[in-house]
Parts: sequence; C-alpha cells; structure tokens
Amino acid sequence: MHYTPSIIESWERFYRANFINSLTGFKSVSLIGTADVNGHANLGVFSSIVHIGSDPALVGYINRPRKAAPHTLANIQATGVYTINHIHPSFISNAHQSSAKYPAEVSEFDEVGLTREYIETIVPPFVKESKVKYALSLQEIIPIALNETFLVIGKIEMVKLEDNFVTEDGFIDLHLAETICSNGIDSYYHTQPAGRFTYAKPGSRPVKFQ
Amino acid sequence: MHYTPSIIESWERFYRANFINSLTGFKSVSLIGTADVNGHANLGVFSSIVHIGSDPALVGYINRPRKAAPHTLANIQATGVYTINHIHPSFISNAHQSSAKYPAEVSEFDEVGLTREYIETIVPPFVKESKVKYALSLQEIIPIALNETFLVIGKIEMVKLEDNFVTEDGFIDLHLAETICSNGIDSYYHTQPAGRFTYAKPGSRPVKFQ
Repeated sequence: MHYTPSIIESWERFYRANFINSLTGFKSVSLIGTADVNGHANLGVFSSIVHIGSDPALVGYINRPRKAAPHTLANIQATGVYTINHIHPSFISNAHQSSAKYPAEVSEFDEVGLTREYIETIVPPFVKESKVKYALSLQEIIPIALNETFLVIGKIEMVKLEDNFVTEDGFIDLHLAETICSNGIDSYYHTQPAGRFTYAKPGSRPVKFQ
Repeated sequence: MHYTPSIIESWERFYRANFINSLTGFKSVSLIGTADVNGHANLGVFSSIVHIGSDPALVGYINRPRKAAPHTLANIQATGVYTINHIHPSFISNAHQSSAKYPAEVSEFDEVGLTREYIETIVPPFVKESKVKYALSLQEIIPIALNETFLVIGKIEMVKLEDNFVTEDGFIDLHLAETICSNGIDSYYHTQPAGRFTYAKPGSRPVKFQ
C-alpha cells in the first residue's frame, strides 16, 4: 500500500497522529525532571530524546509547542538544569500517566506515584526508581518554525547508573538495565539483543561480537 | 556510581563514544537513501531519526558534521528528496556495513548487498528489502553550532508498508513488521511488546489495552 499526503491529510486527527508517530521507529522514551525557581518539581514523559554528540556530550529532545507542553520548557529556561531518567517495566503505567495535563502547581511525581531523588547540589529531581539517569545543563533552545516545536540541547553534567551495566569498552547494556523503549504515543517495548557488530570498513564485512 | 564531566572527558575517545551514545536509550535506526543530481544512489545508516510533528507530518534526523558524513547531506541539498527505510533481522549486518566510509562514486547498495527500489517518480532509491519505508521532501536544515551537526527536517511525501501492519486506530505495529532498533554505535535489538496504554488524564489511571 502507498499512502500519499492527500490520503494522510484526509484521516481523522488521532488516526493520523497514531500513524505518523509510529512510522519513525522505536523511541528512547524517558522521564524529564525539572524544577521551577521555587524548587517545585515537575515530571514529563518524552519520547524524542536524541543523541547530538559525544565530545562535548550533548543530548537533545523535541519539546512540543509552548501551549501544548509549557511546564518542562519553562522550568528548563528558568533554572538551566534538568534530568533525564530511563523507564523500566515496573513503572511503565506511572511514566505514561505523567503525560496527563496537570496544572503547574501539581507535581506529577505525587500524582503518578514516582519518587523524587535529589543528588548532590543538582536542583531538579531525578526519578529514584530509574536505574539509568543523567543531569544536563541547558546549552541551546532551537525553535523549529515549521510547527512551533523546539529542539532543546543540553550538556551531560552527571550520570548515575549501576557499574555492572557498563561493558569493558564503555557501552551501556540497556537490555541488562531493562530500559524500556516506545513507539507511537502509547506503546511500550522490552528489547532482545540481536548482536553488536564490529566497526564497518570498506572491503570487509562486520562480524557479530556479542 | 556517579560519572562527572571530568571523569567522562578523561576517557579514551572510543570508550567515551560508546558510553555517551548508549546513554540516551534505544534508537530508531534506519537507512537513508539519496541520489545525487546524476541519479547516483547513496545509502547510509542513521540512528537519530526523530518525530517532529504529525500535522504537518515532519520527521527529523541529526546529520554529523559535513566532513564526517558528507554524501547524504549533499545529496539531500541537491535534490530535496530522500527516503527512510526500516531495518529488519535479515539484513542488520548489511545495514551496519553502510556506515563504512565509501568514496562518493561507490554506491553502498552494491557494496553492502541491498537492492535499490524506485517507486513512481521519486528520484532517490528505497531499500527493496525494507518492509516499512517513506519518502520525504526537505523542509529545513538547521545547523547546530555547538558541534557542527545539523537537524535535517523533511515532510512525509509517501509511505509504503503492508496494510496488515496498521491497526484499526492508525498505529503501525512495528513489532509485527520486525523493525529493529539500536543502541550505541553498534548494537541492534528486537522488541517484545509491553503493552499499549489508554490516553492519560488527571484523576484516572492508564489501562493496558493491547
């Protein structure tokens, strides 16, 4: 079947959102923790975390238009710091619930049943239940004029995870950590390893080494 | 274990790249097909595909600095059109091999053993072996000055997939399609469904419905 723009644009809004959101593949869904200038904690689920670079260590995410998702972006702009926390099987429904539109004065941590964790002097909370988490300092907010979204880029300032997830070459075994991925707007997945492959060079074939 | 920037920056380059690349979670790895102005086909593997919006249907990806990954970006700028093709278990090593640094005059399709597929009047090739694929028209290339990468944004112009992958509410069942995801720079994964959850609203709990 070939789907053209005229077919896609004719669809009912939620049908189209499900289709387009799931077309791009499995996603790095995570919880972003922020605080406002009074230290009031906010938590949101974001599926558009994207690796920007390793040196410097930069991570981006796409923030929806301000009117649709105001609290996380406003807090990041106000404090310059935020946390990203992986999701695991034991709290998928709690994480999903953090996408509900709560008023600013309500903390999603309490509403969805996840625990704030404060580490060192970092202002925004981490998610205590998360086994892989990191803090970022805001570097740049790039407006995407095409649809009023934003690419928010942070530099990694601290990573907390269990040592045994890190293999001898620095790779983090997220299958061992039971990190969940997502697709579309409401579907979550476990993973099964299909192999790691050797560095690709012209004239040779990559070999599975794990 | 807490990893600080001074620890991370002290690591050997490949150790750091493995760690930072795998920290952000599972990725929507796909093959991007392009052609130069003479129709010469190019194929590259990209793990940073990101959903930008559903209406209009916009998809982004992060392109590395021009000197590190020149052909895909140059072709997209020259022709304004490109294809994104999902990866499946039968050709993971072929897809991985397309990350090797081939000269511009060599086509990765031939070198890695994947088949060009031309659909209708769309200039760049699709990957015939891919069960979920789509064509995009370039909308904007946003330079990321922090590390000389680019956010490349395209509008979906055509989608080709088997009808039975699409559920009744528009969601595409990528587990059924056997789409692969990745982590880090060399690790690939199958998925296992953990459930779809109902739309989250304050005052209720999401229910698993699939």
